[in-house]
Amino acid sequence: MSDGTAYARTARTTPTRYKDRATWERDAIHAILDSTYICHLGFVADGAPVVLPTIYARVGDRLYVHGSTGSRPMRGAAGPGLAVCVTVTLVDGLVLTKSAFNHSVNFRSVVAHGTARQVTDPEELTVALDALVDQAVPGRSGDVRRPNAKELAATAVVRLDLDEVSAKTRADGADDDEADLDLPYWAGVVPVSTVHGAPVPDASSTVPLPAYLRELR
Amino acid sequence: MSDGTAYARTARTTPTRYKDRATWERDAIHAILDSTYICHLGFVADGAPVVLPTIYARVGDRLYVHGSTGSRPMRGAAGPGLAVCVTVTLVDGLVLTKSAFNHSVNFRSVVAHGTARQVTDPEELTVALDALVDQAVPGRSGDVRRPNAKELAATAVVRLDLDEVSAKTRADGADDDEADLDLPYWAGVVPVSTVHGAPVPDASSTVPLPAYLRELR
Repeated sequence: MSDGTAYARTARTTPTRYKDRATWERDAIHAILDSTYICHLGFVADGAPVVLPTIYARVGDRLYVHGSTGSRPMRGAAGPGLAVCVTVTLVDGLVLTKSAFNHSVNFRSVVAHGTARQVTDPEELTVALDALVDQAVPGRSGDVRRPNAKELAATAVVRLDLDEVSAKTRADGADDDEADLDLPYWAGVVPVSTVHGAPVPDASSTVPLPAYLRELR
Repeated sequence: MSDGTAYARTARTTPTRYKDRATWERDAIHAILDSTYICHLGFVADGAPVVLPTIYARVGDRLYVHGSTGSRPMRGAAGPGLAVCVTVTLVDGLVLTKSAFNHSVNFRSVVAHGTARQVTDPEELTVALDALVDQAVPGRSGDVRRPNAKELAATAVVRLDLDEVSAKTRADGADDDEADLDLPYWAGVVPVSTVHGAPVPDASSTVPLPAYLRELR
């Protein structure tokens, strides 16, 4: 998300420790983290980088990230902890300029580094699983069959305390060089957003569409 | 993107070498790679994983990934090459089941591992930059001021040949346990998609909206 001069209009939080941040910076980071539920989890396996998409939830100053039991990151996180990078990205627009060089993307992203540890305490695991369900569909955790002990044991969740975390955003228009402004090309922004379609009930679903799903649209 | 039994309905290509894959597998991988333009680039810096969002383009059996000049991955890629993992993810739906445990996400993802090398040949760099512009907005590279020599020199692009690459998708409905099917909760799929809004022209833009932008919607 980086094209030449476009950087000049990119807001970026400095790589300050989370605990040393101003409230508005934390709020900005939280706002980005609360706007989606998909992250990309990076870790090192046999010396090589691995990046996997998964779901996450923010609870206060922590991220809970869903893994699969027995997978490499989970095995590492069950031991001494696993060095991870959790990155969350939202795309807001395509920025088209008259020069190819100055094209850019409007976006919001958060990059969190730290040591992930597997959640084993049943109480914390319950909080984490509720949060994972509610991050994507707020209100859903109160309208499902809750996990039983067997399911809790079969679920792998890691915790990453927000510590070394930075945010970067671009939210601006086309930024052409002066010399290019009169060129006869279209310039501007194409907004990009993620939308929910009409919920499609399963054959087993006999209750009306809950309010929290109507609001999701 | 992994919840208990939901895995049973997840299609996943085996981690075969790209060159040994059947045509339909390559086509499936290409189709996912051609459906978006944002990737998450993972690499190792000082022993720790780093995951950054950026734009990419597929050209044949290669990915071109945009970086920023002087950044860590670019410095590594300019030398002997940099071990990277490029992950591309599209979310297609939220899968709500009657049990919290079986909730899932419909998605398509590709994970490509390999050694990224900086593109330095001006001809290849031109091809890569055109592709990066066209990946997000097909047709755009023919309707802009092309990059000049100075801009080409200021642009950092790495190439990753598709070699060790796998795809994983889930495209299915709610998959509840038999014992949960009669529970009085809503179950089904909430479709998720990324959409383009009406293009917003810059003040400098005096030409009509080009056909390739009307089609983008």
